Amino acid sequence: MSKSRIVYLNGTYVPENEARISIFDSALMFGDMVFEMTRSFNKKQFKLREHLDRLYIGLKILRIPEPMSKSDLEKKCHEVIEINEPMFTDDDEHRIMVNVSRGPLGIYAPMFGGKIESTIVVADIPLRMTVAGFSKFYDQGINCVIPSQRSIPAHLMEPKIKNRSRMWYQMANIEVSQYEGDNNWALLIDPDGFITEGTGDNFFIIEGNKIISPEGRNILRGISRDYTKQVTKELGYEYIEKNIEPYDVYCADEAFITGTPFCIMPVTSLNSVPIGTGKFGQITKKLLDHWSSNVGLDIEGQIRSWDKAGSLRPDKPTPYQFKPK
Amino acid sequence: MSKSRIVYLNGTYVPENEARISIFDSALMFGDMVFEMTRSFNKKQFKLREHLDRLYIGLKILRIPEPMSKSDLEKKCHEVIEINEPMFTDDDEHRIMVNVSRGPLGIYAPMFGGKIESTIVVADIPLRMTVAGFSKFYDQGINCVIPSQRSIPAHLMEPKIKNRSRMWYQMANIEVSQYEGDNNWALLIDPDGFITEGTGDNFFIIEGNKIISPEGRNILRGISRDYTKQVTKELGYEYIEKNIEPYDVYCADEAFITGTPFCIMPVTSLNSVPIGTGKFGQITKKLLDHWSSNVGLDIEGQIRSWDKAGSLRPDKPTPYQFKPK
Amino acid sequence: MSKSRIVYLNGTYVPENEARISIFDSALMFGDMVFEMTRSFNKKQFKLREHLDRLYIGLKILRIPEPMSKSDLEKKCHEVIEINEPMFTDDDEHRIMVNVSRGPLGIYAPMFGGKIESTIVVADIPLRMTVAGFSKFYDQGINCVIPSQRSIPAHLMEPKIKNRSRMWYQMANIEVSQYEGDNNWALLIDPDGFITEGTGDNFFIIEGNKIISPEGRNILRGISRDYTKQVTKELGYEYIEKNIEPYDVYCADEAFITGTPFCIMPVTSLNSVPIGTGKFGQITKKLLDHWSSNVGLDIEGQIRSWDKAGSLRPDKPTPYQFKPK
Amino acid sequence: MSKSRIVYLNGTYVPENEARISIFDSALMFGDMVFEMTRSFNKKQFKLREHLDRLYIGLKILRIPEPMSKSDLEKKCHEVIEINEPMFTDDDEHRIMVNVSRGPLGIYAPMFGGKIESTIVVADIPLRMTVAGFSKFYDQGINCVIPSQRSIPAHLMEPKIKNRSRMWYQMANIEVSQYEGDNNWALLIDPDGFITEGTGDNFFIIEGNKIISPEGRNILRGISRDYTKQVTKELGYEYIEKNIEPYDVYCADEAFITGTPFCIMPVTSLNSVPIGTGKFGQITKKLLDHWSSNVGLDIEGQIRSWDKAGSLRPDKPTPYQFKPK
Amino acid sequence: MSKSRIVYLNGTYVPENEARISIFDSALMFGDMVFEMTRSFNKKQFKLREHLDRLYIGLKILRIPEPMSKSDLEKKCHEVIEINEPMFTDDDEHRIMVNVSRGPLGIYAPMFGGKIESTIVVADIPLRMTVAGFSKFYDQGINCVIPSQRSIPAHLMEPKIKNRSRMWYQMANIEVSQYEGDNNWALLIDPDGFITEGTGDNFFIIEGNKIISPEGRNILRGISRDYTKQVTKELGYEYIEKNIEPYDVYCADEAFITGTPFCIMPVTSLNSVPIGTGKFGQITKKLLDHWSSNVGLDIEGQIRSWDKAGSLRPDKPTPYQFKPK
Amino acid sequence: MSKSRIVYLNGTYVPENEARISIFDSALMFGDMVFEMTRSFNKKQFKLREHLDRLYIGLKILRIPEPMSKSDLEKKCHEVIEINEPMFTDDDEHRIMVNVSRGPLGIYAPMFGGKIESTIVVADIPLRMTVAGFSKFYDQGINCVIPSQRSIPAHLMEPKIKNRSRMWYQMANIEVSQYEGDNNWALLIDPDGFITEGTGDNFFIIEGNKIISPEGRNILRGISRDYTKQVTKELGYEYIEKNIEPYDVYCADEAFITGTPFCIMPVTSLNSVPIGTGKFGQITKKLLDHWSSNVGLDIEGQIRSWDKAGSLRPDKPTPYQFKPK
Repeated sequence: MSKSRIVYLNGTYVPENEARISIFDSALMFGDMVFEMTRSFNKKQFKLREHLDRLYIGLKILRIPEPMSKSDLEKKCHEVIEINEPMFTDDDEHRIMVNVSRGPLGIYAPMFGGKIESTIVVADIPLRMTVAGFSKFYDQGINCVIPSQRSIPAHLMEPKIKNRSRMWYQMANIEVSQYEGDNNWALLIDPDGFITEGTGDNFFIIEGNKIISPEGRNILRGISRDYTKQVTKELGYEYIEKNIEPYDVYCADEAFITGTPFCIMPVTSLNSVPIGTGKFGQITKKLLDHWSSNVGLDIEGQIRSWDKAGSLRPDKPTPYQFKPK
Repeated sequence: MSKSRIVYLNGTYVPENEARISIFDSALMFGDMVFEMTRSFNKKQFKLREHLDRLYIGLKILRIPEPMSKSDLEKKCHEVIEINEPMFTDDDEHRIMVNVSRGPLGIYAPMFGGKIESTIVVADIPLRMTVAGFSKFYDQGINCVIPSQRSIPAHLMEPKIKNRSRMWYQMANIEVSQYEGDNNWALLIDPDGFITEGTGDNFFIIEGNKIISPEGRNILRGISRDYTKQVTKELGYEYIEKNIEPYDVYCADEAFITGTPFCIMPVTSLNSVPIGTGKFGQITKKLLDHWSSNVGLDIEGQIRSWDKAGSLRPDKPTPYQFKPK
Repeated sequence: MSKSRIVYLNGTYVPENEARISIFDSALMFGDMVFEMTRSFNKKQFKLREHLDRLYIGLKILRIPEPMSKSDLEKKCHEVIEINEPMFTDDDEHRIMVNVSRGPLGIYAPMFGGKIESTIVVADIPLRMTVAGFSKFYDQGINCVIPSQRSIPAHLMEPKIKNRSRMWYQMANIEVSQYEGDNNWALLIDPDGFITEGTGDNFFIIEGNKIISPEGRNILRGISRDYTKQVTKELGYEYIEKNIEPYDVYCADEAFITGTPFCIMPVTSLNSVPIGTGKFGQITKKLLDHWSSNVGLDIEGQIRSWDKAGSLRPDKPTPYQFKPK
Repeated sequence: MSKSRIVYLNGTYVPENEARISIFDSALMFGDMVFEMTRSFNKKQFKLREHLDRLYIGLKILRIPEPMSKSDLEKKCHEVIEINEPMFTDDDEHRIMVNVSRGPLGIYAPMFGGKIESTIVVADIPLRMTVAGFSKFYDQGINCVIPSQRSIPAHLMEPKIKNRSRMWYQMANIEVSQYEGDNNWALLIDPDGFITEGTGDNFFIIEGNKIISPEGRNILRGISRDYTKQVTKELGYEYIEKNIEPYDVYCADEAFITGTPFCIMPVTSLNSVPIGTGKFGQITKKLLDHWSSNVGLDIEGQIRSWDKAGSLRPDKPTPYQFKPK
Repeated sequence: MSKSRIVYLNGTYVPENEARISIFDSALMFGDMVFEMTRSFNKKQFKLREHLDRLYIGLKILRIPEPMSKSDLEKKCHEVIEINEPMFTDDDEHRIMVNVSRGPLGIYAPMFGGKIESTIVVADIPLRMTVAGFSKFYDQGINCVIPSQRSIPAHLMEPKIKNRSRMWYQMANIEVSQYEGDNNWALLIDPDGFITEGTGDNFFIIEGNKIISPEGRNILRGISRDYTKQVTKELGYEYIEKNIEPYDVYCADEAFITGTPFCIMPVTSLNSVPIGTGKFGQITKKLLDHWSSNVGLDIEGQIRSWDKAGSLRPDKPTPYQFKPK
Repeated sequence: MSKSRIVYLNGTYVPENEARISIFDSALMFGDMVFEMTRSFNKKQFKLREHLDRLYIGLKILRIPEPMSKSDLEKKCHEVIEINEPMFTDDDEHRIMVNVSRGPLGIYAPMFGGKIESTIVVADIPLRMTVAGFSKFYDQGINCVIPSQRSIPAHLMEPKIKNRSRMWYQMANIEVSQYEGDNNWALLIDPDGFITEGTGDNFFIIEGNKIISPEGRNILRGISRDYTKQVTKELGYEYIEKNIEPYDVYCADEAFITGTPFCIMPVTSLNSVPIGTGKFGQITKKLLDHWSSNVGLDIEGQIRSWDKAGSLRPDKPTPYQFKPK
């Protein structure tokens, strides 16, 4: 890792740890910002366009003026990667983060020469930082824990826009950090009791040859979730989206989560009750392996190799830092 | 106004328009930040301690480590004011903004030398920027408009913590900006249909000699709302907090809102239906005048004088900028 | 148009503008009345039987005694048309309105000779009155606006019964009349945030080759909605009913509404955010054209020709009159 | 009783049973009408002004143009009474019904000479028609039955506006008519399980010396309910409005309902479970007697005398006629 | 019927009417017990394994230690049947009831020698006791009545675990016992207004060739319901699970319920409104006949023959005893 | 403790550990049983009559025939105590448990000679069994934890009836047993987010001189809660019942719970966030001391003395046994 990675910020390039946003920006005032985070496989961006499509839908609904065209932003992402590549080790991957907000609030325009423009950020983070220490989850599986905190229903705040008003994610994470054990991840339900998502991942169960994921209502519809659909179909399984409840999880054969940084990780229990055999499920493994095969990279192996090389993550999180999203 | 106002930021002083927060900060990642905004009367801070009390409750609930003691933060606020006073005109007031977050996410610690600390900001904004153009609201009164966007109930995200996950405020503001007229302010109801608050103000109605404000459940419990209680009692009115509905507003004699920058402003209609006489109410006026008297400053007059001196606010907001909070 | 159109009313024929119902009727006391409104194509009634089927389901659930058999009522409709045809221009169409209630409340029986019978009305309105001024909606499309007023869920009052307790439709219409612009139509959501219907029309979106309409739960299941299903299938599109949210509309390729008087009209934006190209959608157009073809009449052309011939509708509605249902 | 009672209808006088409203009126199209029903004591109207105050609030919220000033309407009521008095027996009372709607829908203006005006009705009904057969309720008390039908919460349709969109009242009445027994009256609860009102009456319980009525949220705030407050206080009891549940009724000492035609009637059981002694409560009786004393008329005695004189009400209601509202 | 039937209880055999559970058992303290009830056809247990599968899911979710393996419990059931068969008439059937709880609460361990073990019961009841008097339901059909009591949604208490916390079932039964008529059975809806289940049976409607049952969310997913799915498919009908509302029932062609003791019984009306022809539906009959055929026993005939032989059920239930579950 | 304590059971006396209820009893079939648990101070029953009053309200609402008069049951309790006293140590207290159900289900009457009667139990448990090991809670205070499990709202199942359908209490207890720490007690919120109760205790906060407890809606209204009201008033504090939320607890000065066995115990944190000083509150202590004084017994001291004498409770609960209710 190097200190000299750079970030594209409103037309300029700045060192990563100096990439900052004005305290008068609507992003900081209201959590009023849309964003995306990607990854590469063997240095090649995966589904970047799909990520940007989702970003631009968010801009449209939130009436945030587009700071540049979608194509230009895509090019900018590649440009940032190219600049940063020398600072990446050969075995690392590029995790792009794009942030867009409407810029400083209008009443503060005088501070900025009377002119307000959208804010745009393109950062490039080594993927290994995000998944440091995740090997163990492939060994023991994740224990999903349903906290008291509920998902905010879409009609109150739209989770399908990938936005920054997510204090309630942190509230859920704090709760779950108080459970016994070190492989607990929050799994949320909505006020109707339907399972929604983790605080940075989508959830799936397997019943027989059916791969089932919650309806795309009160969740972020993950790009990895979409790709899982494709993987599922390529392997001949049936893919279904429907309302599922904790009861369905308890009765399931297997369960797993998906997320951009790790693609697929096994879930082996819910609230400490084993799901199926209580081990990394056979079909879950096949899905992950097929994904690896499709992208030409051993996904699980890469994470294990990084951990072997020396974890970036301390054994115990500090009291106020929670597992990565 | 001067370019050289400064902001206290994590132990250093920076020019106002260079006060920025890392894109890896939990504040930007999750809207996971608490804040306060104050004002002075005749340069003297008003209820600063009460603002800080509320801030520290938020830190406690969100498990954000205190970056300094409450007393030290209070001193810091005064220090920042003292430094900035030369850049303020004699007739302006100091609007302090304090922001605190838990700092960059733990997984990004390597970018910051492995050490994560809480983020703290103390800014000092000329109050006239916030209330520029508000004279007209004292003339015609505000038309409160209830948008489709509902308040998020406290059990889903706690509004009594003054936090930055407020994208839904902006959604409400966008909606109301599409109504005909130029004195429309959003007034939210919760999913039960009870009136909650504006997107930066508390709401009151007057029935006979009763001053009524919504229960302190799904709202930010404003410092100005609290002070209104005191003013109300000093003038011999009865102060009541209870659930109120639009129907109650339609039947009320008067209505008004409170907010730190302007203290009290008259509401003369709801969804374009006149409340009472449809004019700045007599009792509302008395409350504002008494407040002015208590603080030794003509609150309405000050706003009018700033507007006469030359408004900082353009006649028409740009499409994506909304009325101040 | 002629003054001498007649209405069938409880066994007699009366001039249209003298067709009235007793103030002691349950219809006026409680909005306790079921009704249907139809149209003809080239003077031929369309789906009259389906309308009557729905009417009789309503009677059954509300325990309103049938005033005559379904077949007799169907005949009566044709009889009324035959009588009124001379008063219709050659290019006009017959819009039948049937109303049935349980008649005056029992306690008022003494006023009516002690005998209470169901009330029945068959009126025959020139369709051009209903769609006057609609040409512009084919030009610019409709802007659907989601008001604060929510649909009443079916378990509180059954919208699938076409009944007269619809004050809340008017509340929604009043709200939307306050938005800027002259092509705004109310589009309601239910308390769960799912899109339901307009205040006199059903809503559809198009994604790829899928024509999607809200689940038939909290809506009136329109006869035109049903026929759209048929048209859709004839053209080889996939027809789906499922819960949809505003987010889905923002992401859709096209959108439209259906209603008996106009069959299909394009929706080009939601809350002023363009849907797809923001223009009359290609597939929407095909559906309307196919419908025209099926019934042997240029539906859009007919509306345009009536408007050219001289609109019955003033340019601006009076403050308390809203768009037709 | 006479056939020749008249009704004031839009500027003219018509015989009662010929008082009718156009089928194109918004009242019939949408249940979009506000109304009031009063009574006299010894021929003297009771709280007429309060009834009209409530009516005009409804007009304002629904944006129905006032057809005449409140004072003129008050005069008109008295005028109608004066004209009808000769047709009333000496021992009868005048029950005024006022209806106001926005008139025919705008699109049907051509039928009415292009001019649309508000509709107004003032009828004058002998009170004995409404309370015929009620003696038995003073004997055995009323058994309140909670049906499956819930009250529609105020944020979906405002019950505090006395309006005509009340099909759900009829649904509740139909349900309760299927219970065994002949003294069953519907008592509704809202979706939160709180008791609201009957379908034409307000509900009260008595605990010790406390007279308790549901919060004025999801109910019509009856004029008789308000007067009960006054009567309660005159007798030295404590008057409280708060959320009450069926459990509270089961634990209460007494219960009763209020309504304009009968003022107060005892409720002796809930869902067939006796309340208190299961008899006409002592305090309830005092309240009614005090009311009688205040208005100089034996309220219960008058109803009994009318019933003795010969009931207007058949022993058994026909299947589709329900108890009076 | 004989007095000497026995019950397996925690390792011993006891006479049926002496089979009892400690008052300190969690089952009695909290209704914290899972159970199953089966039946035989021609003495052969039907779907016993499926019943036990469901039981063990319940144990797992409730963290009740398994008192024996599933196979052993299955054997135990057969053993109990074998022992009891001599006490059964030749024409009777074995209704097995299995109960499992976590045993006495830990704090009461000293009463039981300090040792707490799971409680297990296997009883064997003559099926004719449960269905005594049911012949009439095959004659007139069942009238389903929707009471005020709602189903408890799964996220508050999981109905898919067959548990003993069912006081609300009794509340529903009590309500329905107050309706006029003697063929009323409770049919519940959930707070969203969707039909769920009876208090011991699953519900179905038939539309054309579609057999439709409520989604398996807020119901016990009956073993008979599952088998109906199979029967349906064998006969070439389409089987669908989806949300249904009372409106759908009113519009349906036929309706029926399923339950282990009687398999299928016709529902001919809802809230006294006839469904379809108002008689035992043709397709319903086919389903029942096919079931009979599959199991080699005339199901309806057997119930009729038992009733002819002399009913065990009194004509009128005592006031506090309700229809069997 | 002795083996020979006896229990009154349906007219006979049986040894405590042989006190059992038929598996065919409605109590076991449906959790359809009401109960009470009391305690003595210095061998004298406390508020026994109030407990029985609550029991009989439950019987009335659930239509369970009274097995004996309230006075007779009161006598029976004293009789059972008298019989058992010799088996109690001098320093122990009598904890009476009364259970009443409607007896075996009617369909099983043939098993019981055709006669069904209510079931009644009066047991007498040494109080020290219930509070064994509680000394530590007076030392460190209780950490209340809000689990995902919500309270069932009263309109779905009435918690104010002390009934046995409480599986959801166990679900909450299981959840909380998975948190780190050994002083965690479940504190429930209802679906609106208001704090209700623990799974066997009522909750209070203290703000200044106000003692605040949740509204008596979705809770069991504890006898100890009622007595706390009296104690509070005797000490000159203000007693308030109102909706409270977790936020209010975080802001409170002190918190405590009440329950019959222990009267008052301090709550020192909520979800591990300290309340006030994080120690046994001064006012809480005063309330407990005053209670002790009123009943002439050092409540806390007694519990400590029992623990010193040798705890009946193991240091660690077994996995499936939870803290006492």
